[in-house]
Amino acid sequence: MEFKYERKINYYETDKMGIVHHSNYIRFLEEARCRWMEHQDFSMEKMEEIGITIPTLEINCKYKYHVTSGDTIIITPKIIEFNGVRMTILYKMIDKKTGKEVIEAGSKHCFTDKTLKPINLKKNYEEVYIKFHDLVENDILYK
Amino acid sequence: MEFKYERKINYYETDKMGIVHHSNYIRFLEEARCRWMEHQDFSMEKMEEIGITIPTLEINCKYKYHVTSGDTIIITPKIIEFNGVRMTILYKMIDKKTGKEVIEAGSKHCFTDKTLKPINLKKNYEEVYIKFHDLVENDILYK
Amino acid sequence: MEFKYERKINYYETDKMGIVHHSNYIRFLEEARCRWMEHQDFSMEKMEEIGITIPTLEINCKYKYHVTSGDTIIITPKIIEFNGVRMTILYKMIDKKTGKEVIEAGSKHCFTDKTLKPINLKKNYEEVYIKFHDLVENDILYK
Amino acid sequence: MEFKYERKINYYETDKMGIVHHSNYIRFLEEARCRWMEHQDFSMEKMEEIGITIPTLEINCKYKYHVTSGDTIIITPKIIEFNGVRMTILYKMIDKKTGKEVIEAGSKHCFTDKTLKPINLKKNYEEVYIKFHDLVENDILYK
Repeated sequence: MEFKYERKINYYETDKMGIVHHSNYIRFLEEARCRWMEHQDFSMEKMEEIGITIPTLEINCKYKYHVTSGDTIIITPKIIEFNGVRMTILYKMIDKKTGKEVIEAGSKHCFTDKTLKPINLKKNYEEVYIKFHDLVENDILYK
Repeated sequence: MEFKYERKINYYETDKMGIVHHSNYIRFLEEARCRWMEHQDFSMEKMEEIGITIPTLEINCKYKYHVTSGDTIIITPKIIEFNGVRMTILYKMIDKKTGKEVIEAGSKHCFTDKTLKPINLKKNYEEVYIKFHDLVENDILYK
Repeated sequence: MEFKYERKINYYETDKMGIVHHSNYIRFLEEARCRWMEHQDFSMEKMEEIGITIPTLEINCKYKYHVTSGDTIIITPKIIEFNGVRMTILYKMIDKKTGKEVIEAGSKHCFTDKTLKPINLKKNYEEVYIKFHDLVENDILYK
Repeated sequence: MEFKYERKINYYETDKMGIVHHSNYIRFLEEARCRWMEHQDFSMEKMEEIGITIPTLEINCKYKYHVTSGDTIIITPKIIEFNGVRMTILYKMIDKKTGKEVIEAGSKHCFTDKTLKPINLKKNYEEVYIKFHDLVENDILYK
């Protein structure tokens, strides 16, 4: 079953165009990513406790429809690539009211220690490796 | 001669990783874009006064090196595509101290009226069309 | 019965101190204010539709305890003053896990039209005036 | 001679009211505070290198006049209280174009180690203590 993250747009997230500032959608992606990890019972905070940081290597975002304060978005993140060193996540974001696709986005990440040195989960954190790996499998199944 | 936008990183732009949060670089690109337009004597505010809004259609950003509070970045925006309806800008962002490339990014934009309806600068705002068009020319020249 | 707004802290809301940047708490207050108005069935968006904008005149915030990403805060806003022209709101914010008071804050607001010219709700929007006025009454009752 | 921090308002700092979102002024105060410390040759980064963090204990801000993207503000910070344990700073912020006072604000801070435990600069960092102390003296002189 897909994980869906629902959240309302805040007033301070709009700009003078009257709509959400495009930079904020990048933050919503992070929210969805973190909530989804937490839902899988390995929150970003747990990761950091055991010494894993997950920086962002790349962001791609196409803006298709705009929402504004008071609107509600629903974000569905999916891991489409993971090898223990890098991970690619795709996001579906729709406006709850209209069902329209708001953005089409993807993010790439690596795994590092606290000093931001790259690490290989397969070697150093097998349990975490398996968790992420299984998520990719599951993902493929319902594609 | 290239336009360069220099700015310091603020404390509130960092996150608990100790470096600039990746969403903020997208904002720095907008700053560079707006300062550069202002430098060309047609600031975003002037555009809006005459009825032109310039929403963002797409953002692509590769994070290569991280900066943090107190560091200074230098951003060089370049229009590489413009046809009066859409525009593509590429950005070079380096860390002033080390000269290292911080991100590699591009943004796509369209031109709309105040109600965010697309407009064609060539038809409706020839003077603005020529300005942008010339910038692309110049750009190609010093490539 | 008191309205309580519960929300999780996001990663991008922290700074390199490892805790929420102090400016973000001001945004959380706005969130609580807007959710509470919506709960009363006159959301900020409805207000704006009928021509009422509610700018902030003053913010006072004492930082007592820090939260960080993954923590959950619970905010309870209360109108303590309202006369149709101005309004004062106090906020209680606690950390859900520890129950500790995170900040002690208040905000003052006025009511304006779309051009930000002050208006008097009692004269121009009696229905809205009564709604706000009743909330202050209720508030006094459970003090 | 007074230190003045001049900065332009960015597009992403506005909200759908068409003006700077009130939370952003709190960030501008931090910018002014940090630039001013840097101007005194003890930047926030230097402080952190030697183990001093300067959290915010309190913010008070009265919003008097609004600016928007493209406008330029000039901020003048002044230390009015300092005892080695706590510090109070007042800020004057004007709109460069009109000279109008934008906000009237103050911030209170303490000094801590990296773990956010309070420290007394007089005991632990006499050199820093003297620097801050002298700034208060100078301040009183030109009042």
